[in-house]
Amino acid sequence: MHEFSLIAKYFTRAPQHTVLGVGDDCALIAPAAGMQLAVTTDTLVEAVHFFKGTPARALGHKALAVNLSDLAAMGAVPRWATLAITLPAVDEAWLADFAEGLFALADEHSVDLIGGDTTRGPLAFTLTLMGEVPVGAALTRDGAKPGDDIWLTGDVGGPALAVAERYGRLSLSQWDVASDAIASAHKKLDMPTPRVAFGLALHGIARAAIDVSDGLAQDLGHIVARSSMHAPCSAVIDFAALPLHAAARAAYGSRTTEVAGVAVSAVLAGGDEYELAFTAASDKRTAIEQIARDLGVPCTRIGRIENGGTGVVVMGLDGQPMRFGTGFNHFASNS
Amino acid sequence: MHEFSLIAKYFTRAPQHTVLGVGDDCALIAPAAGMQLAVTTDTLVEAVHFFKGTPARALGHKALAVNLSDLAAMGAVPRWATLAITLPAVDEAWLADFAEGLFALADEHSVDLIGGDTTRGPLAFTLTLMGEVPVGAALTRDGAKPGDDIWLTGDVGGPALAVAERYGRLSLSQWDVASDAIASAHKKLDMPTPRVAFGLALHGIARAAIDVSDGLAQDLGHIVARSSMHAPCSAVIDFAALPLHAAARAAYGSRTTEVAGVAVSAVLAGGDEYELAFTAASDKRTAIEQIARDLGVPCTRIGRIENGGTGVVVMGLDGQPMRFGTGFNHFASNS
Repeated sequence: MHEFSLIAKYFTRAPQHTVLGVGDDCALIAPAAGMQLAVTTDTLVEAVHFFKGTPARALGHKALAVNLSDLAAMGAVPRWATLAITLPAVDEAWLADFAEGLFALADEHSVDLIGGDTTRGPLAFTLTLMGEVPVGAALTRDGAKPGDDIWLTGDVGGPALAVAERYGRLSLSQWDVASDAIASAHKKLDMPTPRVAFGLALHGIARAAIDVSDGLAQDLGHIVARSSMHAPCSAVIDFAALPLHAAARAAYGSRTTEVAGVAVSAVLAGGDEYELAFTAASDKRTAIEQIARDLGVPCTRIGRIENGGTGVVVMGLDGQPMRFGTGFNHFASNS
Repeated sequence: MHEFSLIAKYFTRAPQHTVLGVGDDCALIAPAAGMQLAVTTDTLVEAVHFFKGTPARALGHKALAVNLSDLAAMGAVPRWATLAITLPAVDEAWLADFAEGLFALADEHSVDLIGGDTTRGPLAFTLTLMGEVPVGAALTRDGAKPGDDIWLTGDVGGPALAVAERYGRLSLSQWDVASDAIASAHKKLDMPTPRVAFGLALHGIARAAIDVSDGLAQDLGHIVARSSMHAPCSAVIDFAALPLHAAARAAYGSRTTEVAGVAVSAVLAGGDEYELAFTAASDKRTAIEQIARDLGVPCTRIGRIENGGTGVVVMGLDGQPMRFGTGFNHFASNS
């Protein structure tokens, strides 16, 4: 089937807030006065970012979700997306499912798909997402100040365990993890829920924010590094306070140190988490707890920003700093 | 080497007109008041859009050039780019060359690289480019009117012959094409020059514009199809008037009909052309010729828009409509 017909058939929808959508050399959009544009791009490659055989509907969802998570971390309203999709061959049923997953999430967030490119090659998607944020209001990574609380939405540790299980490196059921916890970890991996509304609610409350898609410790490290350009600071995390995904909690509570160690790595260094970590002054605690209740999204105070020091320290149950692996690295030999 | 270090080392440059560049969850840009944003995305995949072994510098150039050509066709000023790059393995010399090719062209057009994603996988790039165009001024595809002249910048036919030669399907030197014409065809394939300044000069002059990257006849077909939504029209091209690349001209002038036929297909249906085709009222001829002289870019009147009819007809030297292959199609079995 012809490339143009493919695009027209599955990816053309009436745009909601776009001057000129798919079908010309460029799309045309008109950001509102007083708004800046937040722009982010993420690529998902088969056998690197997702397993061969992942359902197309989940891939369509995830291609958008991972970018929505970046906008959420800036406190921007999602608006426009372009999608570059590379396919080994035309499979219309697959494309229909992919488009369904993509547009279900796009509709939820009023995102217009304004353009793209369909090419032949190894399966991969690159989605570029644009959103609007009032001038000066974006939640950047560099605003953390000593004394700030560190907060985390949702929970962590589930997706990394699901990835390891799909690689055949472990079996969660053999670790006595309950079947609904296992299913939840895999669902969080395949169909993550970006915290868009939470990011928007943090205007005027959070001082710095990031999504922890490369692993909690590593991403908090980015906040500390960029905030330290203004005044040196570090992050201290209380492991006991961390909201563990049920699968990670069960593994951590296991009788073997090895299994507990895997859980710790999943929690602190596991990628594919689309939760927000942010810092805020301690007088914002009540407001943050109210936001969490209003949105029905758990949010947990996990540590604090310290004056001076470097990097991220995670304090264990014994009051000593913990050791753990580094964040997900696409070029590391073990990833 | 670590993904973040890679990005920092080769792709971080001080932005010229960006609020917040590489290094946060999103980049932040601030379009000027009264401006719309033109957005385009193109993907280049190894062994599909470029040959294995193409120099990295040329790939860096081309990843941006093909998108600049789309902005040129809208009459938009290039501003901001994101780059998603997928690499089988880290090769620093390759990355340095790629970045050099990319930034040489980016600097020429004052384009800021504001973000991106570096992932592991089969070699491919997706570049999303954003530019500014005054509200209502964009050169769309749907404005052609019966009686308009059809114009074409530069020449056509060279890149398609260069592609065929690299596939080993033909030998231009055996066709007595001069060596400088052969070199020029290959250079136009690897290092195309997008017609950005020409597109900008066409504000108030062109009624419809497109870049002919999918083949002259097919892309003119898009102008006719979209313009016909307003009032039915068709395009009539005079083959004798077409500006043939020197390699195509030599092949067309060959003594064998087969070679001449290949040249005709290259001229009318060859992809990888980054020239602009546009329509304009006949009272703009002097102005267009002046633009061509000012910019030192040839521009040729190749036909006209007719009232009614459908599609694109190319009139041959015998006064009869010509037959030729269709445009480049990524999913066709022969591409």
